Amino acid sequence: MELAPLFEPPYVAVIFTSVQAEDALSEGYGQTAARMLELVADQPGYLGVEMAPGITISYWRDEDAARAWRAVVEHREAQRMGREQWYRSYRLRVATVTRERAHDTD
Amino acid sequence: MELAPLFEPPYVAVIFTSVQAEDALSEGYGQTAARMLELVADQPGYLGVEMAPGITISYWRDEDAARAWRAVVEHREAQRMGREQWYRSYRLRVATVTRERAHDTD
Repeated sequence: MELAPLFEPPYVAVIFTSVQAEDALSEGYGQTAARMLELVADQPGYLGVEMAPGITISYWRDEDAARAWRAVVEHREAQRMGREQWYRSYRLRVATVTRERAHDTD
Repeated sequence: MELAPLFEPPYVAVIFTSVQAEDALSEGYGQTAARMLELVADQPGYLGVEMAPGITISYWRDEDAARAWRAVVEHREAQRMGREQWYRSYRLRVATVTRERAHDTD
């Protein structure tokens, strides 16, 4: 688990939580997920991501930046595959981060 | 991974992301984590939680509800143990959820 740094509120968090379908691994999921991580890093207004199995949180400068990523053609195709094949269920929540703090021991 | 249902925006998401210290398992972490899950479910304004290794997102009706949970004595003690022993690093972000959607195939 790699933590994202703190950013400067207000900014946007897109919280994606999911349960994979049983055939997720057989249908190119891993390859597409890696490609999306590569692609998202180049998006204007992208701040960072935190991921654990079943939860991906991406951070954005503002709602427009998050919305623009959602509309990227290659990402739209991945979203379609997600709905049709990879995910049994998911939730997508768009939130505005208002406060944050960090604790680091090293 | 258990997904939370949709709630009614606006509501509050408290995003806690962490890297555990090496001695986390030896110091009562699991027991306290289970107790906190039990305790949080009784808090006024608590909506739900989504958890994966290293990420816990709790959902609240409003900021006051989230703040009140932070002040609960037994939770404060757990927070102290977290800072002093269990977590090498963590981030805590408080966010207001403005939009949400779900996809379910069954």
